[in-house]
Amino acid sequence: MRYDLYYWPTIQGRGEYVRLALEETGAAYVDVARGKGGTAAMMKMMDGKGGTPPFAPPFLKAGRLVIAQVANILLYLGARHGLAPKAEAGQLWLHQLQLTVTDFVAEVHDTHHPIGVSLYYEDQKAPAKKRTAEFLNERVPKYLGYFEKVLAGSSGHYIGGRNLSYVDLSLFQLVDGMRYAFPNRMKTFERKIPGLIELHDRVATRPNIKAYLSSERRIAFNEDGIFRHYKALDL
Amino acid sequence: MRYDLYYWPTIQGRGEYVRLALEETGAAYVDVARGKGGTAAMMKMMDGKGGTPPFAPPFLKAGRLVIAQVANILLYLGARHGLAPKAEAGQLWLHQLQLTVTDFVAEVHDTHHPIGVSLYYEDQKAPAKKRTAEFLNERVPKYLGYFEKVLAGSSGHYIGGRNLSYVDLSLFQLVDGMRYAFPNRMKTFERKIPGLIELHDRVATRPNIKAYLSSERRIAFNEDGIFRHYKALDL
Repeated sequence: MRYDLYYWPTIQGRGEYVRLALEETGAAYVDVARGKGGTAAMMKMMDGKGGTPPFAPPFLKAGRLVIAQVANILLYLGARHGLAPKAEAGQLWLHQLQLTVTDFVAEVHDTHHPIGVSLYYEDQKAPAKKRTAEFLNERVPKYLGYFEKVLAGSSGHYIGGRNLSYVDLSLFQLVDGMRYAFPNRMKTFERKIPGLIELHDRVATRPNIKAYLSSERRIAFNEDGIFRHYKALDL
Repeated sequence: MRYDLYYWPTIQGRGEYVRLALEETGAAYVDVARGKGGTAAMMKMMDGKGGTPPFAPPFLKAGRLVIAQVANILLYLGARHGLAPKAEAGQLWLHQLQLTVTDFVAEVHDTHHPIGVSLYYEDQKAPAKKRTAEFLNERVPKYLGYFEKVLAGSSGHYIGGRNLSYVDLSLFQLVDGMRYAFPNRMKTFERKIPGLIELHDRVATRPNIKAYLSSERRIAFNEDGIFRHYKALDL
């Protein structure tokens, strides 16, 4: 089946977790909003009154299904493309980890937008600095320390055991994003998460991921996305 | 099967979405942390190094499974207790709606904690006021307007059609919480969401929910939970 992915065309953002899964599995997909008229088509689907209109991008069209919310899309794709175990217990566990990734991503976003999404970063620089300090001192150690612990308890090289899962791809993206947004702080912090760093490097060298990362399909990090590099925040 | 629910014992918080589902279905469960030594037992499970340690409460012990993240718990319970359709398409759709509830709940929380969870509300009152204004002006209309639209497009009285689902129970809680936290603002806003208000009232009169709400098992809203009433924020 060919998938249609709908997401903002100029950022990695939340869509990137889905792109990485599609790329790893070699699934045929179109990144709709990056084509002509694609963003308008995306907005139209959200405006839909019947059916199952998404609240926000990303969403995936898979035949007649329209699936929104990153973790939900990965739950669907994982079961179909060998990126999750077949047994329910394993699926619930991976999904829980992915939902914890989701929470972390929301907190990353709020470092530069602590007051509101309808305002620019420039209009909330002072609270952004405070929130980011909190985030780096309290939240990053808690979240990444948790993933490091779970990884250490795994029976294989990947977080769910011997087989790669969509959660591993997302953890790759978290490390990559943190390195982009907070290069100074991450340099120190990486010593505390050797397992996650090793996982990041292992994912980066997988053939399909490697090809994707060096292709034009991989949008560069930038200051419109979730992970943004502002010098004032990387203290 | 008897379930063990682990959540903070003195607040509704995120645990309430699970409690409502368990109560509606009449499932046998123990609210572990409300019993003697329960909070210590909860912390111990999170400290676990092997297995599937949760990142944070709430989590549910179901036989040998330990399931964390509210939407994940409801995905599991919904399929077993008739609170979700049997077909995959319907399950994905409800789960997407629940994940949108999750996002809304996180934003509610951040109205009183825009800078960080390790600080008191009293230490972030000024940014809390700004963030809450943003939330009430921009986000509440967007989220509740979305649920109102989906409800209007439903083929029955409930959001997924003719049968009650766990999402309906969560929407009841959102309306109840918004009324508690922002009584002034909600008074005006309720005119724009007649469907959600009707749904709230319909859920409240279901026999098991009605009995639960008037029991001691329903913890009262308070200023340690997610929905907090601060006069300064209800503008």
